[in-house]
Amino acid sequence: MKTLKTLFDELSALDCDGHGKDFLLTWEKSADELRAVLLLAELFSELHRAGRPFRVFDTGLAVSIFRDNSTRTRFSFASAANALGLTVADLDEGKSQIAHGETVRETANMISFLAEVIGIRDDMYLGEGNRYMREVAAAVEEGFAQGVLHQRPAVVNLQCDLDHPTQSMADLLHLVRHFGSLENLRGRKLAMSWAYSPSYGKPLSVPQGIIGLLTRFGMDITLAHPEGYELVPEVVARAREQAAASGGRFVVAPTMEEAFRDADVVYPKSWAPYDVMRRRTPLLRQNDREGLKALEKECLANNARFQSWECDERKMQLTRGGQALYLHCLPADISGVSCAQGEVSAAVFERARLGTYREAGYKPFVIAAMIFLARVRSPRAVLGKLLGKSAKG
Amino acid sequence: MKTLKTLFDELSALDCDGHGKDFLLTWEKSADELRAVLLLAELFSELHRAGRPFRVFDTGLAVSIFRDNSTRTRFSFASAANALGLTVADLDEGKSQIAHGETVRETANMISFLAEVIGIRDDMYLGEGNRYMREVAAAVEEGFAQGVLHQRPAVVNLQCDLDHPTQSMADLLHLVRHFGSLENLRGRKLAMSWAYSPSYGKPLSVPQGIIGLLTRFGMDITLAHPEGYELVPEVVARAREQAAASGGRFVVAPTMEEAFRDADVVYPKSWAPYDVMRRRTPLLRQNDREGLKALEKECLANNARFQSWECDERKMQLTRGGQALYLHCLPADISGVSCAQGEVSAAVFERARLGTYREAGYKPFVIAAMIFLARVRSPRAVLGKLLGKSAKG
Amino acid sequence: MKTLKTLFDELSALDCDGHGKDFLLTWEKSADELRAVLLLAELFSELHRAGRPFRVFDTGLAVSIFRDNSTRTRFSFASAANALGLTVADLDEGKSQIAHGETVRETANMISFLAEVIGIRDDMYLGEGNRYMREVAAAVEEGFAQGVLHQRPAVVNLQCDLDHPTQSMADLLHLVRHFGSLENLRGRKLAMSWAYSPSYGKPLSVPQGIIGLLTRFGMDITLAHPEGYELVPEVVARAREQAAASGGRFVVAPTMEEAFRDADVVYPKSWAPYDVMRRRTPLLRQNDREGLKALEKECLANNARFQSWECDERKMQLTRGGQALYLHCLPADISGVSCAQGEVSAAVFERARLGTYREAGYKPFVIAAMIFLARVRSPRAVLGKLLGKSAKG
Repeated sequence: MKTLKTLFDELSALDCDGHGKDFLLTWEKSADELRAVLLLAELFSELHRAGRPFRVFDTGLAVSIFRDNSTRTRFSFASAANALGLTVADLDEGKSQIAHGETVRETANMISFLAEVIGIRDDMYLGEGNRYMREVAAAVEEGFAQGVLHQRPAVVNLQCDLDHPTQSMADLLHLVRHFGSLENLRGRKLAMSWAYSPSYGKPLSVPQGIIGLLTRFGMDITLAHPEGYELVPEVVARAREQAAASGGRFVVAPTMEEAFRDADVVYPKSWAPYDVMRRRTPLLRQNDREGLKALEKECLANNARFQSWECDERKMQLTRGGQALYLHCLPADISGVSCAQGEVSAAVFERARLGTYREAGYKPFVIAAMIFLARVRSPRAVLGKLLGKSAKG
Repeated sequence: MKTLKTLFDELSALDCDGHGKDFLLTWEKSADELRAVLLLAELFSELHRAGRPFRVFDTGLAVSIFRDNSTRTRFSFASAANALGLTVADLDEGKSQIAHGETVRETANMISFLAEVIGIRDDMYLGEGNRYMREVAAAVEEGFAQGVLHQRPAVVNLQCDLDHPTQSMADLLHLVRHFGSLENLRGRKLAMSWAYSPSYGKPLSVPQGIIGLLTRFGMDITLAHPEGYELVPEVVARAREQAAASGGRFVVAPTMEEAFRDADVVYPKSWAPYDVMRRRTPLLRQNDREGLKALEKECLANNARFQSWECDERKMQLTRGGQALYLHCLPADISGVSCAQGEVSAAVFERARLGTYREAGYKPFVIAAMIFLARVRSPRAVLGKLLGKSAKG
Repeated sequence: MKTLKTLFDELSALDCDGHGKDFLLTWEKSADELRAVLLLAELFSELHRAGRPFRVFDTGLAVSIFRDNSTRTRFSFASAANALGLTVADLDEGKSQIAHGETVRETANMISFLAEVIGIRDDMYLGEGNRYMREVAAAVEEGFAQGVLHQRPAVVNLQCDLDHPTQSMADLLHLVRHFGSLENLRGRKLAMSWAYSPSYGKPLSVPQGIIGLLTRFGMDITLAHPEGYELVPEVVARAREQAAASGGRFVVAPTMEEAFRDADVVYPKSWAPYDVMRRRTPLLRQNDREGLKALEKECLANNARFQSWECDERKMQLTRGGQALYLHCLPADISGVSCAQGEVSAAVFERARLGTYREAGYKPFVIAAMIFLARVRSPRAVLGKLLGKSAKG
């Protein structure tokens, strides 16, 4: 494990300035910007482990907008905000809202007078979530430029239709800690595989976030899913390009078994069929309950054809030495535990369970790092002071 | 713009002590008490713009009671509380409650053991909202006197059936900044006009708050509305008296056009007919859904007769130089934007839009000023320390 | 009243270390552990009365899980957390959930990464509430041991099916202040009596908490209730043993009158029949609305047979000098005030009213004391510093 000093020195050596920038998609960020988040998240985590505070704000709001249910991300955001000295204020608009234009522009400013950050989760509508975040960002940008706002709050993507950067960055940090360094990930094979779940409408953002991020670091990524469960084509294309550029590899496989073969890491996780998600957006927009119900039925029936896509002992035996690291964003659908038949067998999950908890444990620190880098003007100076002060305290 | 020092000096020169006093109606406050709120709100706003904190509490609760939906006021209150160092605790009782007697008395004490302030929004029932606030205030007064509470939390009116002081004071501060000083408002003509909206049951407190406050400062106020859209008679009578006493003027006009003629400021805003609001209270109390539905239908049908009451380019041309300042408490019903036909045309609103955002931006600081003056025993000393400390920080 | 110094000295003299321990049932705690909570709660209360802060955390979450409606306990927990420097994060799962196994284990860890304390109210299901708390505690214990959590949050029982320790400890502190000392409670007669209420399904935890705690200190406790309104047998047996061990007395009486005779303290309070609560658990678990409705009807009909169980003037005359101290956890069902016929007559309640408010007023400080003792490693040192610093401030 790196010392606090090493983490601070590596962070100081990076050439990037995140100040004033939103965190919306990992693939818009430079490799150094991503490295800065990883290093700072690890630094915050180690400070916290040592019982040393990393509060940098005296007061200020961290606004949250959750347009979908959330417990884990909600607590991660609340934890990050609290640790930095911010107080969460939740904009509770009801869940199924699609708003644009003046409504978004005005609301964004009204909630931001004393806000440092706006965290948004909006993952229900393909083509909408990320777009909504950009509208909010544009609104506060205008508000700040026009003297409405005294400061420009950063917008942080807490999951959208395209990406789930706080999750994928936590996953990446977990990999870094597991394999020793970011460099050690080079050439490691990761299987990002669809898995069966009896539920419906799970967003595509986790697998997209994984292939959109990990292809940056030379990993050998296999994406596997049944026919019809494609991801957003632009993200897949980007993953392919990034893999080529980073000296990694990106392929698509038709079975979980093929993806798992010799994998160092497996990420078996359910998601909704792309086509279903596309047909869902207009139905949600029209609030067509009958249509949504019919679509759900169709989707579950289709899912049921792929119950064999379970991460079980037999498939795990295909991985490198039968010992691949199992990742999951939680909660997993565990066969015989949380459902009759699900993403993962009870035995495989139980072995991996504490590891997935640890994986999740990076998320609060990743979010704190994102907020810190976006809002603190002189990160090195502030961190230096923090490290100095805490050491004495 | 005044310097921090000027604001502090002017504030120090005022002869008023708000300590221990609730803020329930502007017309119960002395002119100096109102001036103190304005100066302190401006001081806090300027401190915040400069990135300087104005936290004065280490811990403590700011209790909120919202008996009607609210986003803007909720965030303003949360922002003010946070900036002062308080944490919001919301008493979520459900919306349509009318409670009196022991229930109010007991609850008020149970939520106040560590509370510094109780902010209440209760604007749905004519004759109820302000009365409820006074019951809460009497309950905590008794609790404090009888040793139940260690401190007496201040009650702040976040909108009631009679007044909306945090809004009207923010509007006033916006006018002060726009025209240069409180004195410069003397003789300026303001049109407080009803405007058409396709919605129903909007409270009377905004127009009442405006005529109840701005007539104190020598302004020339015209209130305009269709027949049947009168305001609470006592408030109108008070506005008339105050205008006479302050050397201003207060008249009622039958058309938006007449009110707008040569106006320096226009405030076109919908509200429910007085008679409807009076008939609504017993229906709400009896939870008579059928009766409420019938009343809504009747009201909307009546509203529809006055669709021409829209603030459009043609009417704006009637104002002084065609350039009157447009005020609104937001969100406005914008024709062709947030509804088919509404309070204001899209073009007029778009020109005024950022101005209305800035107007709203004073509200957190106004609320913070109200809390500070009600709860801080030696405001000059504490502010002096704050200004000194921040200057160095 | 004891001085701060006396409280601190007495606290320092106690031989107990609450660090790292949950607070789930008072009868699992040593007498010194209970005394420590009482002394510290009184110390915090006196500090607060003097306007002196007792914040000990810079940041950190106080997670709350309310599986039943709550206003008073919610505000008490929020107040305690705030005063100590923690921020409440509520896990809002919906009310009627019974979860076990991996769901609880995983959720408990996911909400705890930056948590110092988890406060749980789960009083709806006999045999479930306390069990759930232990599952949560075991989960965070494992998480901490396995490196998932950097710290082990303490679990505090905010009311379960067996005990309501934050209430009973506040009641006890009220008695201590009323009678002068814990020692002065010896031999005092307390009547814990069932009382009529037109409502249904009130938990058994308040009377159980009272008999389970006050029998520890040599009091002479009479429990009275109609046939069928027994408490959980294990708790009654424990009360009996504890009374014998402490030199007190514990008897069960068949009427409120008999319990009240010569009582120094009366606690007339409704609860649901034990048998009904037992039959209710499987119905709730199966979400059997019809069955629950039928059971409610049956229970209310049965209740109605005991309308004479009201604490009225006549019964109060039976108590010692007609002057017994009246206790209630609030809100009371007051005849002619909050219901037609209830637990207590209006006249009796009105005389006792402010006393019950003061009784409730200890709860935030009791909770703060429980959190402090469970989470602060060197309580004496931290308190010493707090007292020194505040004295100057």
